[in-house]
Amino acid sequence: MTDEPDEACGEAYVIRALTSPADDARVHVGPGDDAAVLADGTVLTADALVEGVHWDHRHSAEDVGARLVAVNASDVAAMGARPSWALLTLSLPVPLDRAWVDGFARGLQGALRALGIPLLGGDTTRSPLGVHASLTMAGWLVAAPLLRAGAGPDEDIWVSGTLGDAGGGFSLPDPPAPLLDALRRPAPPLDLGPALAEAGLATAAMDLSDGLATDLPRLCRASGVGAVVDPDALPISAALSSAIPDPIDLAAGFGDDYTLLFTAPPAHAARVRDLGQRLGVRLSRVGRTTRTPAVILQGRPWPAGWQHFEGAGA
Amino acid sequence: MTDEPDEACGEAYVIRALTSPADDARVHVGPGDDAAVLADGTVLTADALVEGVHWDHRHSAEDVGARLVAVNASDVAAMGARPSWALLTLSLPVPLDRAWVDGFARGLQGALRALGIPLLGGDTTRSPLGVHASLTMAGWLVAAPLLRAGAGPDEDIWVSGTLGDAGGGFSLPDPPAPLLDALRRPAPPLDLGPALAEAGLATAAMDLSDGLATDLPRLCRASGVGAVVDPDALPISAALSSAIPDPIDLAAGFGDDYTLLFTAPPAHAARVRDLGQRLGVRLSRVGRTTRTPAVILQGRPWPAGWQHFEGAGA
Repeated sequence: MTDEPDEACGEAYVIRALTSPADDARVHVGPGDDAAVLADGTVLTADALVEGVHWDHRHSAEDVGARLVAVNASDVAAMGARPSWALLTLSLPVPLDRAWVDGFARGLQGALRALGIPLLGGDTTRSPLGVHASLTMAGWLVAAPLLRAGAGPDEDIWVSGTLGDAGGGFSLPDPPAPLLDALRRPAPPLDLGPALAEAGLATAAMDLSDGLATDLPRLCRASGVGAVVDPDALPISAALSSAIPDPIDLAAGFGDDYTLLFTAPPAHAARVRDLGQRLGVRLSRVGRTTRTPAVILQGRPWPAGWQHFEGAGA
Repeated sequence: MTDEPDEACGEAYVIRALTSPADDARVHVGPGDDAAVLADGTVLTADALVEGVHWDHRHSAEDVGARLVAVNASDVAAMGARPSWALLTLSLPVPLDRAWVDGFARGLQGALRALGIPLLGGDTTRSPLGVHASLTMAGWLVAAPLLRAGAGPDEDIWVSGTLGDAGGGFSLPDPPAPLLDALRRPAPPLDLGPALAEAGLATAAMDLSDGLATDLPRLCRASGVGAVVDPDALPISAALSSAIPDPIDLAAGFGDDYTLLFTAPPAHAARVRDLGQRLGVRLSRVGRTTRTPAVILQGRPWPAGWQHFEGAGA
């Protein structure tokens, strides 16, 4: 698991083709992290949700609207920033399904209201097949940004919340309510990133959208370290562990958790725990960074991560 | 043509469902203009292009990439602003068409380079059918923004460039090269909006993306005025007039021109003409605003405008 997990599939190809190193005084952090950072401290991210790819019949229109806000806010928060505004592009099939639009609007606006941020505008177009929604979200930094690069060797690897619940909600034939809720309505810990940045406790961070098996190697590569993860330390919910005998592959491989992955020096462990308690966010120390570049799950192979362009490429 | 042309179709419904009046001290101009304006002067817009809706086999991948930048830059410039950065979300079918991605990247990057602005990042996802590309672009104002609201009665109505060329390129079975070029590579007059704003010459402005028949009523409604347009004054290219006997419907109704529509007091006419000459931009005075709210094309009916959700709605 030391090489780029995306190399074999198309996503890495697309990103390489489209991005060039940002050599611009106005850009503090360019492409490649959870969000970009301008020289003035503005944090910027954009995420798209596509019908049939990111949601199906188990999601209501309201779920989709709320989710679009959540996944973008998760990226903003993972930089240590607080959301400030959003812009939407929405492509809809004809004839227009007004009930779906109403539900989507309720979910989107409710989630934006909860963040206290305005929708500034955007674009609506026709779609030949299925709904396509893309949101751009900005944020403002409370302190220096939390980057993927920054972890040193022999630091603690922390994860917030529980892993694999959305995966259980997706995979199980008749999932219990907490797992289905996790699939439908991801709830990223939006105060955690800013609090860690403000307190100067974390050395690197990113949100867990593609699963630990895919995202931890990304953080390690950006930081130039390796990692050893203890599978027994992965935070598993009671709902998941009672529904599946061995939930580790789902917890490490599925993604869609939208929890926070971060590293911190062992000397900060007590303060990190205190912070989690103060915010009411479960925090678990799941492993240790290493000087050797390998990213290892102790005693078992990593599960295959979800790939955006599975089967694509030459 | 006094009532909202979108009322009968779905787009107005979607916009109404999604936007709420911006009651936020951080927002200077909310949804409803070509772009939003933050209190700090940042201009923000987002536009999506969808395969089969906004382009077809006549457009190369490079055309699509360049066009995505052009349509967003057109909105930024219509506010009187200059572009500053962009964010992309791109959804692609599998298996990945690498040659298409390479072409798209060339077109996008070439256009961004010409503007001197960086691509800060974004998101790539799988698409179940066809390519979907959405770009968010920011700009900075050189003076007070040019809004759709602001035109008074008895002002001149100006249009830049020529109208209907993209429409000819789209509609004609074997269009001459200049019309096909206009369809493939819209070239909005990006210096005009900022120059008009800086000189304080225009009272209202917007870019002509949906055609004069749709866009002029929008500007008039926002400004609380009507208009009388002289069809003989509409700027028609030699290529279009030699290809089609009566190109007025195409010029007024098709859209995709990405030229600038603006109003100015008659006393500014000479200075407006001078500005056009200095910038090398053709400017035509096509009509006059009126106190009565009707928007009239003298001596003939308006052509039906292109609607994003034709046939949609209850």
